[in-house]
Amino acid sequence: MRDAHVRLAHGNGGRLMRELIEDLFAPHLANPLLDVRNDATTLPPTSGELLVSTDGFTVQPLEFPGGNLGSLAVYGTVNDLAVSGARPLWLTLNAFIEEGCEYALLERIVAALGEAAREAGVAVVAGDTKVLPRGQGGGLYLATTGVGARAASQPLGLGRIRPGDVLLVSGPVGDHGTAVLLAREQFGLRGELASDCASVLPLAQAIWDMPGLRFMRDPTRGGLATVAHEIARATGATVRLEGANVPVRAPVAAVCEMLGYDPLYLACEGRVVAVVDAAQAPAALAAWRALTQGREAALVGRIERGAPWVVVQTPFGGERLLEELEDDPLPRIC
Amino acid sequence: MRDAHVRLAHGNGGRLMRELIEDLFAPHLANPLLDVRNDATTLPPTSGELLVSTDGFTVQPLEFPGGNLGSLAVYGTVNDLAVSGARPLWLTLNAFIEEGCEYALLERIVAALGEAAREAGVAVVAGDTKVLPRGQGGGLYLATTGVGARAASQPLGLGRIRPGDVLLVSGPVGDHGTAVLLAREQFGLRGELASDCASVLPLAQAIWDMPGLRFMRDPTRGGLATVAHEIARATGATVRLEGANVPVRAPVAAVCEMLGYDPLYLACEGRVVAVVDAAQAPAALAAWRALTQGREAALVGRIERGAPWVVVQTPFGGERLLEELEDDPLPRIC
Repeated sequence: MRDAHVRLAHGNGGRLMRELIEDLFAPHLANPLLDVRNDATTLPPTSGELLVSTDGFTVQPLEFPGGNLGSLAVYGTVNDLAVSGARPLWLTLNAFIEEGCEYALLERIVAALGEAAREAGVAVVAGDTKVLPRGQGGGLYLATTGVGARAASQPLGLGRIRPGDVLLVSGPVGDHGTAVLLAREQFGLRGELASDCASVLPLAQAIWDMPGLRFMRDPTRGGLATVAHEIARATGATVRLEGANVPVRAPVAAVCEMLGYDPLYLACEGRVVAVVDAAQAPAALAAWRALTQGREAALVGRIERGAPWVVVQTPFGGERLLEELEDDPLPRIC
Repeated sequence: MRDAHVRLAHGNGGRLMRELIEDLFAPHLANPLLDVRNDATTLPPTSGELLVSTDGFTVQPLEFPGGNLGSLAVYGTVNDLAVSGARPLWLTLNAFIEEGCEYALLERIVAALGEAAREAGVAVVAGDTKVLPRGQGGGLYLATTGVGARAASQPLGLGRIRPGDVLLVSGPVGDHGTAVLLAREQFGLRGELASDCASVLPLAQAIWDMPGLRFMRDPTRGGLATVAHEIARATGATVRLEGANVPVRAPVAAVCEMLGYDPLYLACEGRVVAVVDAAQAPAALAAWRALTQGREAALVGRIERGAPWVVVQTPFGGERLLEELEDDPLPRIC
């Protein structure tokens, strides 16, 4: 009979660890490449350059409206590959499980991880579990590394951005950050808000062969503001955001207003920021808006010659400097 | 000026996180493929099949005689590739840093990681850092994923083992487990014992083209006993260990005797267990003994037709059944 909670002995390399892996992880992650008895997995041959990306996941609470730590751990890494112009193929998974973690909760998270992987078209090909002593683990932490094959027909990167280019976002910002915040703080507003946690591969694919596409990024930790700062720093140019054009859902705006957060700094987990040649912006927006995920896509700013600052244009013609994020508004958001 | 300790804000995606990565991680891990501004890294083309492996690292204390969490995080993953017949090429790194972690300690660990990577011939090509709230992190956890290219000329695996084959070990067992135990428990015996933490690539390479090599594994968590159980379970045969032939350093034996541990269950981090055709054992042992790391290599057991048990032959002609590891003798050993 199964334990109801994970014990330290589930991490020791012996019988309990083998059973945890064989009974809980393996069934949800099953695919032809995964053999939990192997030290290493042989990848099938592929054509095209391989790209690799990695991310750690520590969101609190472990489950939130719209997703959980498991789905987040897939999408977070898959999305980094997609915005880099690669089709995600394989994932590795590390689980750091705190002693006392409820077995049923762990199983829901691993099940969501498996489902997200299937939906995103990636196979979990290798994994490892460790058990942390009670009080040293925060429930569960995950890390994933993704490998994908370049599919975009052109190179993308911060170095390709030029003054005159414009900044697009594929949908409303701040949904993930606010949904996690409310799930944590128990405001009783859960029904209104869900994380945008999803694979952005369809959004990335819709524009990655489009001439004039310079760069894509998914605005996770630090939000749209942090992506804008990365662009300003890399290009030495000014990023001017048109505040009124940045899509923000009404409940996100309301929560931010109440609690004093700026949605520009809040994490998204299913959005893409793209920099494109201004002449191509209408075509890129049209491509995104043709997708359910991109219906609310908007042109939110432009790159201008000037100092490497991020400036927000306010609705009444004023402007304010958007600082680089300093204090953490929301620890353990992803 | 740098903070003396890591703060939550070092994990938020903003300025402090960027500085932590640029000032502490990047210099020690620098290589032509690593660009900390990218979401994903393009891997250079290689010939030969690629293998992937991943591991999490939670050793306590974070520093111990013979290594630290950083060197362990390199060798642990590199060694899984090497015993699978692959030459390790690239690593990804995830760091989960507890708020309050001393900056100087973190830097020593990252420096050791960089040094181990250079020594093992692998480049860290992507990474991610997260900061955990104080009291939820145990100091620092690392996860690495390694990619390597198959170099062994023959397939290796549990499925190739046959009755009559013999079991070799490349050196004394239990050094890592005992060294970490003593570093933790403060027995004042540190000078005597150091972890065997090292790349086993030279040991694996020395025999991976040898005809009659069936299988290799590095006996980490759960030690030699756990590898023997994996073999028994996979083959359905008896693994008979000759207790007197298993090399154990005198101070390891003394500590185990005092504290009631069996060195057969203790982790090694720089040893290889190999199963070879009995006729090839002398050649394999000679190849290992020609290396400094393999001077104490020994034939420690054989695979026999019979029930899938692990039996230890005692010096006076008796035998005992070696159980599969149940309770955790030493949590957070790797």
